[in-house]
This record gives sequence, structure tokens and C-alpha cells, in this order.
Amino acid sequence: MTTDLCGLNFFGHQWQGKEAGFARFNPQTNEQLPERFAEADASDVNAAALAAEQAFWAYQQTSDTQRAALLNAIANELEQDAELIVPMAMLESGLPEARIRGELGRTTGQLRLFAAVLTEPYDTFLMDEANPGRTPLPKPELKLGQLPLGVVAVFGASNFPLAFSTAGGDTASALAAGCAVIVKGHPAHPGTSERVTRAIARAIDATGMPKGLFSLLQGASPALSTALVEHPLVKAVGFTGSLKVGRILADRCALRPEPIPFYGELGSVNPQLLLPGKLAADATSLAEAQVNSMMMGHGQFCTSPGLIITVKGAGLDTYLAALVDNLTAQSANAMLSQGICHAYNSAVETMLSEVDILAQGQAAQAAHQSRPLLAKISAAKLMAKPELLDEIFGPFALVAICESHAELQALVAALPGQLTASVHGQEDEVAAFADIIQRLSFKVGRIIFNQMPTGVEVARAMNHGGPYPASTDSRSTSVGTEAMKRFVRPICYQNMPDSLLPEALKSTSTRLKRF
Amino acid sequence: MTTDLCGLNFFGHQWQGKEAGFARFNPQTNEQLPERFAEADASDVNAAALAAEQAFWAYQQTSDTQRAALLNAIANELEQDAELIVPMAMLESGLPEARIRGELGRTTGQLRLFAAVLTEPYDTFLMDEANPGRTPLPKPELKLGQLPLGVVAVFGASNFPLAFSTAGGDTASALAAGCAVIVKGHPAHPGTSERVTRAIARAIDATGMPKGLFSLLQGASPALSTALVEHPLVKAVGFTGSLKVGRILADRCALRPEPIPFYGELGSVNPQLLLPGKLAADATSLAEAQVNSMMMGHGQFCTSPGLIITVKGAGLDTYLAALVDNLTAQSANAMLSQGICHAYNSAVETMLSEVDILAQGQAAQAAHQSRPLLAKISAAKLMAKPELLDEIFGPFALVAICESHAELQALVAALPGQLTASVHGQEDEVAAFADIIQRLSFKVGRIIFNQMPTGVEVARAMNHGGPYPASTDSRSTSVGTEAMKRFVRPICYQNMPDSLLPEALKSTSTRLKRF
Repeated sequence: MTTDLCGLNFFGHQWQGKEAGFARFNPQTNEQLPERFAEADASDVNAAALAAEQAFWAYQQTSDTQRAALLNAIANELEQDAELIVPMAMLESGLPEARIRGELGRTTGQLRLFAAVLTEPYDTFLMDEANPGRTPLPKPELKLGQLPLGVVAVFGASNFPLAFSTAGGDTASALAAGCAVIVKGHPAHPGTSERVTRAIARAIDATGMPKGLFSLLQGASPALSTALVEHPLVKAVGFTGSLKVGRILADRCALRPEPIPFYGELGSVNPQLLLPGKLAADATSLAEAQVNSMMMGHGQFCTSPGLIITVKGAGLDTYLAALVDNLTAQSANAMLSQGICHAYNSAVETMLSEVDILAQGQAAQAAHQSRPLLAKISAAKLMAKPELLDEIFGPFALVAICESHAELQALVAALPGQLTASVHGQEDEVAAFADIIQRLSFKVGRIIFNQMPTGVEVARAMNHGGPYPASTDSRSTSVGTEAMKRFVRPICYQNMPDSLLPEALKSTSTRLKRF
Repeated sequence: MTTDLCGLNFFGHQWQGKEAGFARFNPQTNEQLPERFAEADASDVNAAALAAEQAFWAYQQTSDTQRAALLNAIANELEQDAELIVPMAMLESGLPEARIRGELGRTTGQLRLFAAVLTEPYDTFLMDEANPGRTPLPKPELKLGQLPLGVVAVFGASNFPLAFSTAGGDTASALAAGCAVIVKGHPAHPGTSERVTRAIARAIDATGMPKGLFSLLQGASPALSTALVEHPLVKAVGFTGSLKVGRILADRCALRPEPIPFYGELGSVNPQLLLPGKLAADATSLAEAQVNSMMMGHGQFCTSPGLIITVKGAGLDTYLAALVDNLTAQSANAMLSQGICHAYNSAVETMLSEVDILAQGQAAQAAHQSRPLLAKISAAKLMAKPELLDEIFGPFALVAICESHAELQALVAALPGQLTASVHGQEDEVAAFADIIQRLSFKVGRIIFNQMPTGVEVARAMNHGGPYPASTDSRSTSVGTEAMKRFVRPICYQNMPDSLLPEALKSTSTRLKRF
């Protein structure tokens, strides 16, 4: 049972709010769950932003060690509440226990990785030494540092109720960067957001961090999202979600009196380029890997491989037959929400007027379930209908068949921006495709050789983003330690005495790597 | 004489264009100069963009050493043409010879600095090693690289006809990053732009770089600017100019079907915070430094100190009297253009309805000259009229007088974003103002101790930018070697064989620093 839920919003370090408002559904049964949650409004946004800004001025003065302690404390508190959080996330997302437990591990690991980075030795910063004797003008001393941006708004994602939501990567990277955070919880999993927030609040208490540093605003209305991104005290936004909503919010951020960065990770079709030699050699295992990858989370991963690019030749028929074998055995399943399921079914229906069905999974048992589908199309037809390259969020993939090397080249050049692409090839054939592979790299945030795109490693060298429309800002990543950089900006300190410099830039700093 | 000018536009490595269109003025005499220049239109933009994109695909494959050779060749060709370029820039800008010669040196130095950075050893890149035995999932190898964005549009600035124009910092950093460049020349100095372009074109020939890599489009119409930033093949924009125009173009970039980064460096009032001890000790020299700095380029520097923040106390009267002495001796002078002069006079007139005149320079001898001016206001009144914090581009500065430490704190907190601020203080008094100084740092891109803000060093640790409205993207600098980062974006290479990796990431790379 879930009677511990208060259904309120959390800001100024208190649970506050009005009468219960929106409800959410059990995706597996499509039944409304009993609790209701207060819908935050513009006055709640304002109160949260004021409290967050006040907390920010204190928080930005904390040391890296103190911030690391906070992140580790959040990870510990999440683990302590695992038996509260995991069942709630399963209930609200419909995702299986192993997946949710894995995602909790990913979430705590992510927090601890940022904490580790904060306490490592620094790289040597950029510095120019003074030269008072230079003519015609003396040269000043310059040191390049960085400052956190301020209050960051984070939008929780439906498909990762833990790792990309309340205490997910955006929150962890913003806190690590020295920013205060206001999470707009995804309305599909408000109970999970509330339980995760309780863990974060305890971590703030335990580490003596300023109250107001973290807020959770619940709500299902677009007005709440708009009020949040347009609040003058909000200085950056992290978002994971659809192109449609992401673009609306990105435009709002750009048109504010003071424009702010909007980091929207929006998804893509993640092309899989099957080179002829590899296809001839490994058709069956490629097909199995493709279906396994596209069925992860019932196709609801932003790196789900939704487009397979092939060239006519040896192995193609075997590959297609193996795709059919593998996909036909897959079950229909509930999706994360009724809205997502409806969007999937509707997008597939539109798609089927243009493409040929290759294989279908088992039929849906209820209207809120979606059926896996593979389709095929000629590259020529696909290039003539570029809207068929739009992502269909769910267990769908399209096989595009090129007649020639030249057509392959043209299709790759015509692709819109992608989070990832994979090249499946034999080592001895890649040279012949080097130009195409290089061109493909300009379309993606991550390019992969002989591996599937699902499974985004939380690591230092990860880049999860990509050219628009995969993300709204290809210069940044939403996963991995580089994600911190989204929430800081450079500042040059000219001729500043040590006493006025941040710890990292003082000549007495002990954390610099000295090479 | 200037008869070598063709008055056309340069794209596809040829001078092309229609009948002569717009004219420009000699700012010193306010007389129209004889030549006319073809106004580029949307079809020229399209042709330039197509040629630039084609060149980009070749150029991005060049090595860092080849790019460095191009940048050095441009610097050499500019020096070779110094006796053509310098007189033309003087004629079109009205700036004195020493200043223009200095600016040419800054421009060639900037190109060579980027070349030097390109051929230095790399820092070790970010990498995660594979762990095939990890459970539950193997860990892939990840290497983090970067890719140039594509074709970059650069808008030349009126106030630096060389260092921030055709072959200026934006062009140098975009070429260093591996991008193709289309410059929209400032219509006040088209002859200078043409002569600089001839030098660039020879450097492209001499180093065998792809034709189309660099274009110059001349024009005075907003339609040209709009067509350029909205062209689908343009992937980023560098701009130095006014808030008004910068914001219009920034919004256009944000609302494109594919939004692109717009790096607008827009200027600010660059507050000078005079701490009481320093004011008491050094009133006279502070006043002299202030007037010298604000009169550089007749106040037409984006880092011109336009706001002086003081607290009532010892030294203030002496300081104000010394300001009067110093400013009264300053001459009126022509500005960079009639439009800028008109805007200055009009802004000063509006300002004078709210502030008290402190001192005026010598009276203007003609309608196209502007007269230096210092004014004063109470901090309370200034905070009540925040529009008085808007930049007035020209030889104007406002002295704000605070009654107390608390009022100083409030005024600093109320400041909009700035390129720079200086703190003038004694070492033994800064501790008492540490909170205010830290708050000031959050308003600026560069914070300076006991030096004036004019003179932006081209260096590794420089940051020339700042929170809006000083710039449109506080995460970047338009001066210094970090400026290259504006025109690249990250890419993760997962499990890629050496043969498919860029030179810098190969396991055989010889240019990595090995610590």
C-alpha cells in the first residue's frame, strides 16, 4: 500500500500545497490509482524559485568536498529506501523489478561518480602569467575559472523514473556543478518522485546543506512547465522527453527577456548501418541483437535502434528472415502510459500506409498494449518521404534497403540528427566505407562499432546528445561526468589576489594535478 | 586612392555580384566616399552557403598542422598588405594610425596564437577503457572527441574593423575549429573587408585549402543578415554588435527549424567598484585611469568603463574633482559612424533628464562629433531606474554614489550581466567586501583587480563574454583560444577501431601529452 504519500509539493524544504489534484494510472492494468497529487501552480513555482535562489547563494560557497558528501548522502538514502522506491516505480511505470532495481543502481552509481569527480585532483586550469614589462602594454595575469549558473529546472522523464527523473542525471550534475535544483516530476510517476524527494531531503539535512536547495513540483499541466522555464530566477533547464514538448519549452527559454540554456534530450531513430561483409557473415546474430535491443523497455529507450540501413547483397534475405523469427516471438506489452501507447499505435498506423510490414510480435491483449513491429522500405522511397525518419517511440523499427553504395551515401547524408548510430562491419571492409562512416559521425552524438546503441554507459567519455532534433544543444551531454559542464560558465579572474579567488585557482591550492 | 576596390562579394572563391549598391562615409569628414559596394542578397547567401558547405567537407578532413598553416598564411598575407589595409581601415573607421596598426598586430597575433594551439601536444582526451568481463553487462570502450559544427556565419563589428571583423577572432577561431566561414562585412568599412578578403584568398590558394572555405558578403540591409542566419547550411553564428540587433538575430537563430548557436557579444557598462580605502588613498590616479580608459577609441570599446560605483567617504570629493579636471580636457571627436554618433547623442540627452552633469569634454565642432560626458546619480535613484544601467556606446560614464555598505550590496545585486567589472581596493580592505565582490563576479565574464577593463588580452585564460545582456551565451568567450570551443561539439566514439578514429584519438597518436 502507498498510504505514506502526502501528494504535496516540496519547496522551501517543506511539503506544501493545495487540495489533491491529478491522478495517475497503473500502466499494466490501465486502472487509475487511488492517490491524487496537488498540481503546482505559478505561485508555487515562484515560492520554490525564491527559496532555491536563496539556497543557491549559500550552496555555491560550499566546497567540492561538501558537495560530494551531499551526492553520496543522496545515494545512501536512496538505497536505504529501496524497498519503498522500487515497488512504487514498478507500480507507476509498469516496468519489471529487475529493470527498476538496475535503474536504482544506475542512479546511485551516477550520484557517486559525480561525487568522485568532485574530489579528484583538478586538471591544471588555464592561466596566463603577468608580464609587467611587456611593451607597448603590460600583460596582466589571467586565470580562467568557472561559476555555477544558478537555479536549474529539471524535467523528469517518463521512461526512466529514477535515472532520468527526480534524483537522476540532470539533478546530480546540476548539484555537482553547484546549482540549486527544482524538479518538475513526471506526472506518470508522482509517487516515485515523492519517495525519492524524501530521500534527497534527508540527505540535505544530514549534510547541513541549505534548505530550499532541492524542490519537487508535481503537475500534469503545460502551464506549470511554462511557468517554471519562464521564471526569471531559473537560469538553465534540463529536459528529457519528446521533440514536441521539448521544442515548445526550448522556444520559451530562447524568447525570455533573459534567454537561458535549454538542454533537451529528445530522442531519435539511432540508425544501424549494416555493412555488406558483416551482413553476409553474421546475418543471424545481427538480427537477434537488433530485436533484443529494440525490445528493451518495450522499445521505450531513447537509444532504441529504430532504423536499420542495409545494402542489397549476400546475407540480406537471411537477415530479414531472422528478424521475422526473432520479432514474431515477442509479446505485446503495456507502455509507460496510455498517452504513449496511443501515440505509438497512431504513428505506426500512419507509417504502415507507406511501408511494408516485415514482422509483427504477438497481438495485443488490451487497448493499452502495443504490438512490436518491423517494417521495410526502399531507401529511395525513404529519402522521398523524410517524415518517415521521425522517431516512433516504442517497439518499432524500419529496415531501409539501398540498391547501391551511392544510394547508401545519399541516405546517410539525408539523415537528421541522431543520439547514436552503430556501424556493423568487418574490420577489413570499413576502409571502403570510411567516407560514409565519417559522414554518419556528423549526424550523431555517439558512434558505435559492432555494438547496439541501447545501454548508455554513465562514464567520463560518454556523450548522450547529438545534433538537432536528437537534442536541442549538441554541445552538451546529459549523461556522464561532462554533463556537469552544462550548468557552469567560464569567468576570467584578472590580477585577482589569492584571497579573492575560488579555492581551485589559489596559488596555494593543494588539489591541482602538478605534472 | 582606392581604385583597386571591385566592390563585389566574394564566394565560391570568386568576386561576384550585381551592380554597385550601398555607399559608406568618411567618419572624420562625414562625407560620402566615392566607391559603391554590391549589396548581397538571398541568392548570394545561398550560393555562398553551398560553396562553403562543400569546402567544409574537405576542410574538416585537414590536419591540425594544415589548419595552422592556413592561419599563419593569413597572418602573413595581412602583414604583406599592411600598407593597403591600414590606410583603408583608417579612412573608413576614422580611427588613428597607431590604433589601426596596433589592431592589425592584434589580428595577426590572434591568428598565429590559434595556429600555435593547433600544433601543440594535446591534453589527454577523456577515455573509458573497456571491461568485457563486467557483470551484468560488459563495459564498452569510450573515447570522447569533437567535431566542427559546419559553416559558421561571422558578423563584422564596426568598432574593430580588423580584430573583430573579416579576419578577426570569430573567423580565426572558426577556421581553427575546422569550420568554413561566411563573413557578413560591416557596412561601415567594406573597403577594409575587401582588402582583408584578398589576403585571406591568397592564403587559401597558397596552402591548397578548398575554394569556398571563406566568403565575404557585403551589405547594409537587415534582410541580408536574416537570410544568412536563417540559411539551413549555416550551423553557428559569431556576432559582435549592439544588443538590439544581436537579440533580433539570436531570436531568429533560436526559432529556425533547426536552432543553431548564436554567439553575440553585445557590450555592457563594465562597472568600476571603488572601495573606500583605495578611494581615500588614490583618488587622483583612479580618476586619471578612469578617464583614460573611457576615452579609448572615443569610448567605443565594449569594455569601456561606463559605470563607477562609489561609497560616500574620504576621497570621493577629490576623486570627483579629478574626474572633472581630466574629462574637461578631452576633445570631442567623430564616432565610427553617423548612426553611432546620433545614437550616442540621443541616449545622453535621455540620460541627462535623470542624472546630474559632472563634467563635459570640449564642445563638438560638427554635428557628427560627440562630446565626452561624466554624470552622477545616487545609488537609490539608479536602482529605481534600472534603464539607466543600459550601455551608452561612446565617451560617457556615470558615477553612482552609495550611502552605505548595504546600499552598495543592493546595487551590485541589481546589476544586469556585464562583460567585465573591476574592483579597485587595498589588499587589506577586500576581506570586508568579499561577499559583494563575489556577488559581482556572478554578474560578469571577467573580474579585474586594480586594473581598467579596456584592453582585452588575446590569451588562453581570457574570457570575453558574460551573462545576458553582455552576451547571448555566457558559456563561451569570443576572445582567446577558448573561443574555438564555440564551433565544435562533442562526439563519443564507442568501440571504434583505430582506422575509423580521428588522428587525435588513435592509440598511435604522437601528439598526446603523456603525463
